[in-house]
Amino acid sequence: MKTVPKPTTESGATTDVPLTAEELQLASRNHAMPLEMLAADRTPAGMHYVLIHFDVPAIDAGAWRLRIGGAVRRPLEFTLAQLQAREQRTLAVTLECSGNGRSLLKPRPVSQPWIHGGIGTADWTGTPLAPLLAEAGVEPESVDMVFTGADRGVQGDEEQNYARSLNVSESMSPDVLLLAYAMNGAPLPPQHGFPLRLVVPGWYGMASVKWLTGIEAITVPFTGFQQMSSYRYTSDEADLGQPVTRMKVRALMVPPGIPYFMTRDRLVNAGQVLLRGRAWSGRAPIRQVKVAVDGVWSEAQLDPPDGEFAWRGWTFRWQAEPGRHQLMCRAMDALGQVQPLEPEWNYLGFGNNAVQKVQVTVRS
Amino acid sequence: MKTVPKPTTESGATTDVPLTAEELQLASRNHAMPLEMLAADRTPAGMHYVLIHFDVPAIDAGAWRLRIGGAVRRPLEFTLAQLQAREQRTLAVTLECSGNGRSLLKPRPVSQPWIHGGIGTADWTGTPLAPLLAEAGVEPESVDMVFTGADRGVQGDEEQNYARSLNVSESMSPDVLLLAYAMNGAPLPPQHGFPLRLVVPGWYGMASVKWLTGIEAITVPFTGFQQMSSYRYTSDEADLGQPVTRMKVRALMVPPGIPYFMTRDRLVNAGQVLLRGRAWSGRAPIRQVKVAVDGVWSEAQLDPPDGEFAWRGWTFRWQAEPGRHQLMCRAMDALGQVQPLEPEWNYLGFGNNAVQKVQVTVRS
Repeated sequence: MKTVPKPTTESGATTDVPLTAEELQLASRNHAMPLEMLAADRTPAGMHYVLIHFDVPAIDAGAWRLRIGGAVRRPLEFTLAQLQAREQRTLAVTLECSGNGRSLLKPRPVSQPWIHGGIGTADWTGTPLAPLLAEAGVEPESVDMVFTGADRGVQGDEEQNYARSLNVSESMSPDVLLLAYAMNGAPLPPQHGFPLRLVVPGWYGMASVKWLTGIEAITVPFTGFQQMSSYRYTSDEADLGQPVTRMKVRALMVPPGIPYFMTRDRLVNAGQVLLRGRAWSGRAPIRQVKVAVDGVWSEAQLDPPDGEFAWRGWTFRWQAEPGRHQLMCRAMDALGQVQPLEPEWNYLGFGNNAVQKVQVTVRS
Repeated sequence: MKTVPKPTTESGATTDVPLTAEELQLASRNHAMPLEMLAADRTPAGMHYVLIHFDVPAIDAGAWRLRIGGAVRRPLEFTLAQLQAREQRTLAVTLECSGNGRSLLKPRPVSQPWIHGGIGTADWTGTPLAPLLAEAGVEPESVDMVFTGADRGVQGDEEQNYARSLNVSESMSPDVLLLAYAMNGAPLPPQHGFPLRLVVPGWYGMASVKWLTGIEAITVPFTGFQQMSSYRYTSDEADLGQPVTRMKVRALMVPPGIPYFMTRDRLVNAGQVLLRGRAWSGRAPIRQVKVAVDGVWSEAQLDPPDGEFAWRGWTFRWQAEPGRHQLMCRAMDALGQVQPLEPEWNYLGFGNNAVQKVQVTVRS
């Protein structure tokens, strides 16, 4: 076996503040997508990110029902087979956890300590939500639709089923929101919401409620924990701040070469290296991706778009010279939004889309 | 929403020594099985533990070959289709990472910081290894068979493909070692070794080499990094110690009730609670499982065995009284081996099968 130089630990991918026991427990349960999977258009179920607030509920699909109620003219109830018999649609959707990048903030908010891997792209198959709501007849005084999952636990001193709302017009977006029963052509795996989940393209993942059992129209704004106490951009504990909604613009790269087991730094052979990655934004199409080698920025080449809601591939040919180098990538969307070079801190650690930094040792 | 008392943080499931950045990177890549999945006989692919030393390799199954060579009379080469056309066998096998429980050791060895979830049980389908080796004709002077994967990186200053050996007689065990191309009836997912992996029932997971490309008979004992420098029970850096081989006896329980998001402590309603879990040993069948409530031990009821190599279910009816309680479970195998009550430390943090402790708040 060949001995190679061991790099110093400066991956830039983590923080120098030690982690707590609670963060380890969360990191152990909530799976990241290993970044080499950015090479795949679609993320296999077991490699797609998973954020589970409480436990994965064990659901008997035969006994399971979806109930649509509240301020509607005709409350409805569906079996899984009834939903599967309705109009079927498949959408390729990139989902990202709104806490992605949290562990890179300083000081670090203590919750699920994502580095960069809270992402994934899958083909979600289901039936559009809007026609179902039309059938139920949402009363005109309704303001929010509340989506409730079967997962239950205690967070922020409140016992709760996980529940999130969208306003009525968001919920009625034609042909976009799906009630999904399949992922990449197979039934939903338990951890992705079996038997049914909401998929809200363009939004951070907290909106795409898993293990969905109820949809309720309400006539006052929803004040549930996951809507008003969490998933908000705030400056301190007292600040109500602004809600987390759509995914911010972001690019990530496949770390080139081979990894060091412990530091996850990369070892690359000198010569031409094809860097590649993906970019996305929940607000607009991707317009440009740039790559920096030791701080010098150049434009990457974009692959053709892959539908309206999936990430977009990009490539960049790098002439790698021996030595230590830092690579970065940075996306801009059609609204001109770009990623910050350094993390923008907020109290709960949401939406950190700062550019990825990859440390590479090139050998001749 | 109902407000419930927030417990103090004393889950017993973690350590009070803060984690390092490198451990977070490893925990983010290497997926644990959430313990509620102990309720399922078979672990779905995306919930089964995964330990990946380097990167998940992207393999073109059409171009992929398995080569059997070294000290054999007839070197052989197989396509995936050729292996799939041979004798097919499906085995239910419990796999556990030998580092499972590492984060509970004090002082804590710095590597993948498993708590309890480095486990899973799947149906593995493939072709038995022994007839293939017989066909190749292993030379009588051979001592070890080396199994090499396509995953490559740097560990312990050595650049390497992941490789592990078994001695010739272990490798030739009839009808036990599988070259597996399917998991739970589906093609191997990328993270579990697509297109082919070794499955060594009874052994800790490091023996079940993924992304298998080569099997080589050698006439001197294998000294590769993963055989001689890692996966050993040692007392310090200089100690060669003893190799890690078969899984130690262990029981784990499904944490009852519902979780607190941050502490992962449990909230349970008073009354009769059915505790359940699984137990296994890589050396002998499970003979007994005991459950302790606040330190008082009682015998649990064993489910029927589930084949020779899968975990065995157990249940225990607990009359839960209001207050704070600590639950434990402890298995014994047919050789009389029992789990230690406290972790047994070793330098690299392998084989920690100390009993699980679950903190529960019971409300009336």
